Amino acid sequence: MPATALASDDSPEDERHSTASPESINQVHVEVQDGVPMYQITRLGEPVVEPSPLGFLLEDAPDLDGPFAITEVETSTFDETWEQVWGEKQFIRNHYNEMRIHLTEQEDPERDLVVTFRVYDDGVGFRYEFPEQEGLEEFRIADELTEFRLTGDHASWYIDAYQWNRFEYYFENTPLSEADTVHTPLTMRTEDDLYISMHEAALVDFSTMTLERTGENTLKSNLMPWSEGDRVRVTDTRVSPWRTFQLADTPGDLITSYLILNLNEPNKLEDTSWIKPAKYNGIWWEMHLDKSTWNRGERLGATTENAKRYIDFAAEHGLDHVLVEGWNEGWDEAWYESGVVFSFTESIPEFDLEEVAQYALDNDVRLMGHHETSASVLHYEDQMHDAFALYEDLGVRAVKTGYVGHGTEIVRYDEDGNEHNEWHHGQFMVNHHLDVIELAAEHQIALNVHEGVKSTGLRRTYPNMMTSEVAKGREYDAWGDAGGNPPDHTATLPFTRNLAGPFDFTPGMVDLHFDEYRPDNRIKSTLAKELALYITIFSPLHMVADLPENYEEQPEAFQFIKDVPTDWYDTKVLNASIGNYITMVRKERGGDDWYLGSITDENGRVLSAPLHFLDADTRYVAEIYRDGTDAHWDHTPYDMVTEERLVDHTTELTLRLAASGGQVIRFRPATDEDIERLE
Amino acid sequence: MPATALASDDSPEDERHSTASPESINQVHVEVQDGVPMYQITRLGEPVVEPSPLGFLLEDAPDLDGPFAITEVETSTFDETWEQVWGEKQFIRNHYNEMRIHLTEQEDPERDLVVTFRVYDDGVGFRYEFPEQEGLEEFRIADELTEFRLTGDHASWYIDAYQWNRFEYYFENTPLSEADTVHTPLTMRTEDDLYISMHEAALVDFSTMTLERTGENTLKSNLMPWSEGDRVRVTDTRVSPWRTFQLADTPGDLITSYLILNLNEPNKLEDTSWIKPAKYNGIWWEMHLDKSTWNRGERLGATTENAKRYIDFAAEHGLDHVLVEGWNEGWDEAWYESGVVFSFTESIPEFDLEEVAQYALDNDVRLMGHHETSASVLHYEDQMHDAFALYEDLGVRAVKTGYVGHGTEIVRYDEDGNEHNEWHHGQFMVNHHLDVIELAAEHQIALNVHEGVKSTGLRRTYPNMMTSEVAKGREYDAWGDAGGNPPDHTATLPFTRNLAGPFDFTPGMVDLHFDEYRPDNRIKSTLAKELALYITIFSPLHMVADLPENYEEQPEAFQFIKDVPTDWYDTKVLNASIGNYITMVRKERGGDDWYLGSITDENGRVLSAPLHFLDADTRYVAEIYRDGTDAHWDHTPYDMVTEERLVDHTTELTLRLAASGGQVIRFRPATDEDIERLE
Repeated sequence: MPATALASDDSPEDERHSTASPESINQVHVEVQDGVPMYQITRLGEPVVEPSPLGFLLEDAPDLDGPFAITEVETSTFDETWEQVWGEKQFIRNHYNEMRIHLTEQEDPERDLVVTFRVYDDGVGFRYEFPEQEGLEEFRIADELTEFRLTGDHASWYIDAYQWNRFEYYFENTPLSEADTVHTPLTMRTEDDLYISMHEAALVDFSTMTLERTGENTLKSNLMPWSEGDRVRVTDTRVSPWRTFQLADTPGDLITSYLILNLNEPNKLEDTSWIKPAKYNGIWWEMHLDKSTWNRGERLGATTENAKRYIDFAAEHGLDHVLVEGWNEGWDEAWYESGVVFSFTESIPEFDLEEVAQYALDNDVRLMGHHETSASVLHYEDQMHDAFALYEDLGVRAVKTGYVGHGTEIVRYDEDGNEHNEWHHGQFMVNHHLDVIELAAEHQIALNVHEGVKSTGLRRTYPNMMTSEVAKGREYDAWGDAGGNPPDHTATLPFTRNLAGPFDFTPGMVDLHFDEYRPDNRIKSTLAKELALYITIFSPLHMVADLPENYEEQPEAFQFIKDVPTDWYDTKVLNASIGNYITMVRKERGGDDWYLGSITDENGRVLSAPLHFLDADTRYVAEIYRDGTDAHWDHTPYDMVTEERLVDHTTELTLRLAASGGQVIRFRPATDEDIERLE
Repeated sequence: MPATALASDDSPEDERHSTASPESINQVHVEVQDGVPMYQITRLGEPVVEPSPLGFLLEDAPDLDGPFAITEVETSTFDETWEQVWGEKQFIRNHYNEMRIHLTEQEDPERDLVVTFRVYDDGVGFRYEFPEQEGLEEFRIADELTEFRLTGDHASWYIDAYQWNRFEYYFENTPLSEADTVHTPLTMRTEDDLYISMHEAALVDFSTMTLERTGENTLKSNLMPWSEGDRVRVTDTRVSPWRTFQLADTPGDLITSYLILNLNEPNKLEDTSWIKPAKYNGIWWEMHLDKSTWNRGERLGATTENAKRYIDFAAEHGLDHVLVEGWNEGWDEAWYESGVVFSFTESIPEFDLEEVAQYALDNDVRLMGHHETSASVLHYEDQMHDAFALYEDLGVRAVKTGYVGHGTEIVRYDEDGNEHNEWHHGQFMVNHHLDVIELAAEHQIALNVHEGVKSTGLRRTYPNMMTSEVAKGREYDAWGDAGGNPPDHTATLPFTRNLAGPFDFTPGMVDLHFDEYRPDNRIKSTLAKELALYITIFSPLHMVADLPENYEEQPEAFQFIKDVPTDWYDTKVLNASIGNYITMVRKERGGDDWYLGSITDENGRVLSAPLHFLDADTRYVAEIYRDGTDAHWDHTPYDMVTEERLVDHTTELTLRLAASGGQVIRFRPATDEDIERLE
């Protein structure tokens, strides 16, 4: 590795310590400068992060900001391939070189702080360890001093932190210098076309890290505070989450980097046989369209009869779960202002919970539970043990939770009984969400969390934490101010939101105008693009989100929705440009089929798709669903052509996508009959 | 095709006329607005060029600026696959829809003007025709009114026009709004990642078109003027060159677009059997290094003895031509100031032209001729018939010409004997260069033109017009102010200069520091990157440019230089980012081997290279020349690893390029012995 950038002197404590990734692509260098520990990240010898400080300011204890010396350096190598219970790739290699830097204060109280760096070929993660010792028992972090001194004013995609509507904003794309304090993942492209995703992994018993711009090209960790002003309360958990950099020369390589998962702990659940990737439909979109209501009344959606209609549809078409929202007591109050009205176990008279759940089971379908907490967390915590037990008894295997409410108004009481209002993304809620995950697992229930904390790869450790929203989702198509999500939203998500983890975006709309219900809104896609979202947005639980009656009108499109799986053996990115377009291919797990999905923003595209990923010794039928010649999201969104052709791994397809258009292809091994028919 | 953007009324003359490319990817729309003919280009229904005016201001005749009406519209389709005599691809499909718009003045003198649009799936070309008619016999163009109203402030790569040093500048990369008047090709990337190259095709008997920014996002044709101020003198040639837009979603697709060639006339040479792609070495770099001199004296390079040394080297290693610069009378004067001193037929006493030429032929090598005109064009025209005849007699088959001199100082005399100073790129020189091409063809001589006019695809019509410089070339590594070309120069050229046509960049340097001769300069590449330039820069005549003695020191690298051909059956781009990196693969013509070349700028890269282009039923030996683990252009440029491995079309390689590094691979079908040895 080239010795660059950081100077050294002769004192061993002030030595510069470096380690490189297995293929020597990324390097980390650590040294102490004037008592301050500084780390640097280089890639193939060139800086990605300039020397940047490490440390903490504390409450209740002296700050951990030096003067430090490096007193021990441990290095090790790790190489293991592990299997995901479900996911975008079945077998993942976790291969890194580790450098554990022991820092010792050079003044009283002479405490130790450890920083561990794991250097991968696709990026770097590092975390702090707080060894339990005199002067560092339980303590509060006032501020994390970690800086990220970047090398330029990179093009950036981000959501501002500290907003009332949590993560439900469109990603902004500006130079970094126009950002203030942002959530992660923060995606960046340097002037020289290096792609960077900054995020964190294994967010456990800590506050969410946001990134504050504190100087030219410099970001600093800004931990979401408790309402009392401190940032983190360190008790049993003596490590921070991993601060992560994923580094790639193409945006697609960010997507197929599994660094976030690799930095999480292995699966802790003994039995995972009950955790099943699935598709679900349900009583949900009709309320967003205002065809029906959550509230009790004439247009109530959650009736026994309506639920059975959705169950019949799910049973007929092979869907796994049926979600019902609004079935429980509380929706007929001003629930948003006063969520404490909800019962999580008592159903309204119009809805017979046991009958519906049994009807589902009788039809080889399961009810998907729903817990809208309206961010009244303590109220929910009071009931949630009973609530999950009830669902377990009813054969429910997945629950959608919701935390609709102002992002700063989570009510909490301190030891003295004083009420506090906490952020959705501070340590209090991070801990709540993990409690729910563990509780759900005890009841063999998988989670689909809306308005939660951002994903940081905990799904590896708790595979029942299947999917979440935590982004601007589908419902804004129905009632968002913009008249529907803009065409580039879904072309941005794979490079931003989805880098954190699975996203319950609820794809599959086949009725793109709903003038009867919401004349000022529409879905700004072609039909083919809507199909492609099943591939371009990863979620092991994908909704079949449109109304049953609308699928009857689009049987060809619906065929693809029925065919597409939600669990994958492998994932590859064929074309990618952030916010502009993406083509992904995924191989189904436990089968031979591949699926291609390609989408674009408001501009049409002509993209090349060589099919080299297909098995070399197999001929396939390509079942193609593509934009027609005259398709355009604005005036001709339903113009879709379906066709079959024989292909193999030497075929090179040209994908012609309309403005806000898309294309999907199912590749299945051809039978002799197929070959005779299509050759 | 969606009917967008331009309004129409009921009058047939004011109707909007549209045509689309064969796959309906690009569309052109033409209508007359207030008497002004306006064209628009859309791509998949979205605008690329907003409605923009057409027309001319004339001298000696009324302007051709309307009021016009459309009086006839002819449409046709063309689809033909033609064979290049040599080139980057052997068989090229020329498939377009054409729309010829006849415009008639609605006032006296009621002349006709025709505009022909050819709409391809990879872009659009249009040209004017000036039918010979009363009021439009011979005339002078005062200004071309063609505008190009673009849709945004696109990222742009360009060279400023109207500079003293002709095209020998580094490409600038700025928003379009920071450009003034620029040469073509002008390469652009829109905010939405559409790639555009604006250029012209078939520049014959016209002035070079530059592009002047005349308004927000608006460019206008700015024709290089005659010294008298008029722009073009129209006599026999009654058509303009084609104004071209190449449109692609990836920068690589600009490179594999053959629109410029397709818009040129087919080959006019009856016999092309004597035109051979080749490699050459010669007495050239040693003068740039100041190891020897062009001038006569103690360190003269062009001696009979030295030429024989280069011929011996060429013969030993299979090179085809040996260039000798400085062999003729005139170099020992202040030639740059007074180029009229040159003789193009008389050699200096130290150099026996006939002996050297015969020695070459005896060794199965040919002398490459050299005509440095020092831009004294009339002086050269006086001698050039004799000069080409002499070379033909001596068995020379290729001549390098040069026009070193201030870009505005070409001397010309008008009918009254008055002296004028013309631009290098005006109609006077455009015509001179075509005269030389035709004269050379009569003598079965191919051309390698330095300091000439930009390429516009004339090589299709005159395949003896093989290559040219017309850009900042290799010599700036030896003595340029920057201490050597910056690492991103060669990562920019494939997307800019090379879009016009072949480029004699003279690759193959294996001695990257030459402190003995030029201590302040060096070549800012790794050794592997230097090899890759043979692939990433296309030229059918490529130099083996370093000194013979330097190749003796690098036998491994030299092996690749000996192996690599300069003529191709096909070309594909695997990775591309303008100014940052490129990976290309090319299949040799008349053989089975493929060659991969990948280079990067000052940043290291990790790029994926799936080998799906290889024949499906063949196993290959990959002869790999790659940057070593510690390679870096600045401190360890010679760290190169060579290795062999067996691969096939299902192999996916990872290319690890050092900072300003590269990689080349020759893929050759494996023998049984190879398989046994390498498996």
